[in-house]
Amino acid sequence: MTLHDNIRQTGDRALVASRRMVRLSTAKKNLVLQAMADTLDRQRELIKAANTIDLEQAATANLSAAMIDRLTLNDARIDSMVKGIREVASLPDPVGKKIWKRIRPNGLVIEKKRVPLGVVAIIYESRPNVTADAAVLCIKTSNAVILRGGKESINSNIAITRALREGGEHAGMPKDALQLIETTDRDAVRELVQMDNRVDVVIPRGGESLIRAVVEHARVPVLKHYKGVCHVFVDASADLSQALAIVENAKCQRPGVCNAIETLLLHQDIAQAFLPALHDMAARRSVELRGCAKTIAVLPSCKAAMPEDWPAEYLDLILAVKVVKNLKDAVTHINKYGSHHSDAIITADMRNAKRFLKEVDSAAVYVNASTRFTDGGEFGMGAEMGISTDKLHARGPMGLEELTTYKYLVSGNGQVR
Amino acid sequence: MTLHDNIRQTGDRALVASRRMVRLSTAKKNLVLQAMADTLDRQRELIKAANTIDLEQAATANLSAAMIDRLTLNDARIDSMVKGIREVASLPDPVGKKIWKRIRPNGLVIEKKRVPLGVVAIIYESRPNVTADAAVLCIKTSNAVILRGGKESINSNIAITRALREGGEHAGMPKDALQLIETTDRDAVRELVQMDNRVDVVIPRGGESLIRAVVEHARVPVLKHYKGVCHVFVDASADLSQALAIVENAKCQRPGVCNAIETLLLHQDIAQAFLPALHDMAARRSVELRGCAKTIAVLPSCKAAMPEDWPAEYLDLILAVKVVKNLKDAVTHINKYGSHHSDAIITADMRNAKRFLKEVDSAAVYVNASTRFTDGGEFGMGAEMGISTDKLHARGPMGLEELTTYKYLVSGNGQVR
Repeated sequence: MTLHDNIRQTGDRALVASRRMVRLSTAKKNLVLQAMADTLDRQRELIKAANTIDLEQAATANLSAAMIDRLTLNDARIDSMVKGIREVASLPDPVGKKIWKRIRPNGLVIEKKRVPLGVVAIIYESRPNVTADAAVLCIKTSNAVILRGGKESINSNIAITRALREGGEHAGMPKDALQLIETTDRDAVRELVQMDNRVDVVIPRGGESLIRAVVEHARVPVLKHYKGVCHVFVDASADLSQALAIVENAKCQRPGVCNAIETLLLHQDIAQAFLPALHDMAARRSVELRGCAKTIAVLPSCKAAMPEDWPAEYLDLILAVKVVKNLKDAVTHINKYGSHHSDAIITADMRNAKRFLKEVDSAAVYVNASTRFTDGGEFGMGAEMGISTDKLHARGPMGLEELTTYKYLVSGNGQVR
Repeated sequence: MTLHDNIRQTGDRALVASRRMVRLSTAKKNLVLQAMADTLDRQRELIKAANTIDLEQAATANLSAAMIDRLTLNDARIDSMVKGIREVASLPDPVGKKIWKRIRPNGLVIEKKRVPLGVVAIIYESRPNVTADAAVLCIKTSNAVILRGGKESINSNIAITRALREGGEHAGMPKDALQLIETTDRDAVRELVQMDNRVDVVIPRGGESLIRAVVEHARVPVLKHYKGVCHVFVDASADLSQALAIVENAKCQRPGVCNAIETLLLHQDIAQAFLPALHDMAARRSVELRGCAKTIAVLPSCKAAMPEDWPAEYLDLILAVKVVKNLKDAVTHINKYGSHHSDAIITADMRNAKRFLKEVDSAAVYVNASTRFTDGGEFGMGAEMGISTDKLHARGPMGLEELTTYKYLVSGNGQVR
């Protein structure tokens, strides 16, 4: 069978399964998820054995220590997958939720209700736990899911998928509601994202190059997260010790994640007062500062920022620093160089706060808090498929609701136009 | 200047204008719309003169009478554009609307609020009134809009856009919030839909070939309407005279629109009783029937349906007719051959109605009413940008709300993670 036919048949099976998923009740779906958790728990030795093969191949291929760490499944990580599935089972089901109901003058009753998207394709990189995490969010929302993981974790992904399918089917899930593409042929991604009559949405999870490749070839709509170039702007009226604590947290608490900040903007009126304290914090936390000319005028030892620093996503203990004339210039900088993810103003001036919230074109805008809170859990969504930097359909943290669409249910008694 | 640079600069100007649009209040935007209506009204002679040039060129190019009719602007049509703008001004503004507000255990206050999409590109065909209709919906929702109309109506589009820009600017709209691409070079569309750092969404309005071409080249997300292959299914328990009235309305009242039906499905238990009445109605309303073998067994004079009839969008007085065994087969047929637009069941069996509403994967699903009601006005949305057959972001009629996205506004007092 050609790759093309292989992927098409996967799509056909998913489409058929998606029609059956629509009929499962919330209670039935939660039983499916619990059974998946049970089977994953029970098959942990099989999963660890498969993972060992991946790890051996990774060692042979000289993958980095960080990569090997991400690939590794141990009992703690399997426990965490199992626990994650049970948590998703306990969340409220968005499917069937009424968005509004109207009775029209002609007597038609129109209800707008949440329904599953249909077939969701998820393309991800090396971490095998994504296989379980992403799959169960799709099943909880009555979607069929096609998974395509990284080739480094293929054996682990196959073992996890098998456990989930076995458990799910036992509790009444159509088996093909969860499929993994087992070929590691790179062209499989291209086939998958062009199947717009079988797949309703593709969600790539990984680095920017993976995402650009998906967007380039996709005919299926894409929900994506390009990058997180987040900012804190310290306004003239800011409480400087609060500002420093927020900057330290937003930069250092977990520098490798998308909601950590990459650039700090300082109002010129407080730059002189704030920069020495920033310098001390940076030295203490091993943060490399890269400053504009005005920053260096105050901190002569600071490295100079280059034009490529402003749009950079370091994901590391590096912070670009720029002194700006006013709020307007801060907003302009953020809208120009940021990735429309998460940006904060530290200020005591509520008019400035309001203006920042309105004019900064980002998924999450903050006043006097760390950007690190942009997260499905922190926002009270329960679970998270990722954080979208798109504006259509889903913006910011994607929870269960973002894996649904809606339809209009119209009931009449013979109405015609 | 190259075409590439020309379109990029249009995008740059739109992006700058979109940042200013965010700052306009609802009251200010409504003044802008009223001023647009006034100027359009006042400049009607200029617009009709420009339209005359388009009509002369259309005559030279031997365009069809239907095409020339769509192209024509007379006082009545200009009145209707002016009235349409005033109606949009009177609609509630979705921008700034609170979707939800949560106070988190750590004291963070999170508000999810509607905000503009940013820059909207609209690609349409020959009807010049779309220039005004589409532009004002975007301005009402604080977006900047880039219009690209058909080459047949270019002079009319330029005159209408000029009037709207003059009126809008006079009342405080940044002029470049409304731009028309004046070149008729076909490659302009390609440039426009690939500018994903300047344009937030593209909405193509026109025939299937236009839409497929946009999707093929787009890097910008697309909101689209492929086609309307809508169905009525007459169930075994249907009130047959009600069913006939609904079928007549859904097929004949306006056969050229997307929510008219193309295929009628009949439960085998009522086919014998229903088909003769259908035949009489079809003869009276000049509807050509194309039936399956079981239909022809009852109506021997009926033309035979070919496989290509089931997915066909006739947009004409033609109706495909198929006898099915049961509800399940009707649902399977609709999900397979339909365009996920609008489909109806006529039944007295509320369990079947419920199952149809749940299992038919369409934007609008009906019980005992005509599919012709799928429309922004009929659904109480006030105005309509089109009807989406997509599932992401907007499904079914797109009103003002569908021209917005949302953001999270997070207020704290120093919270860190």
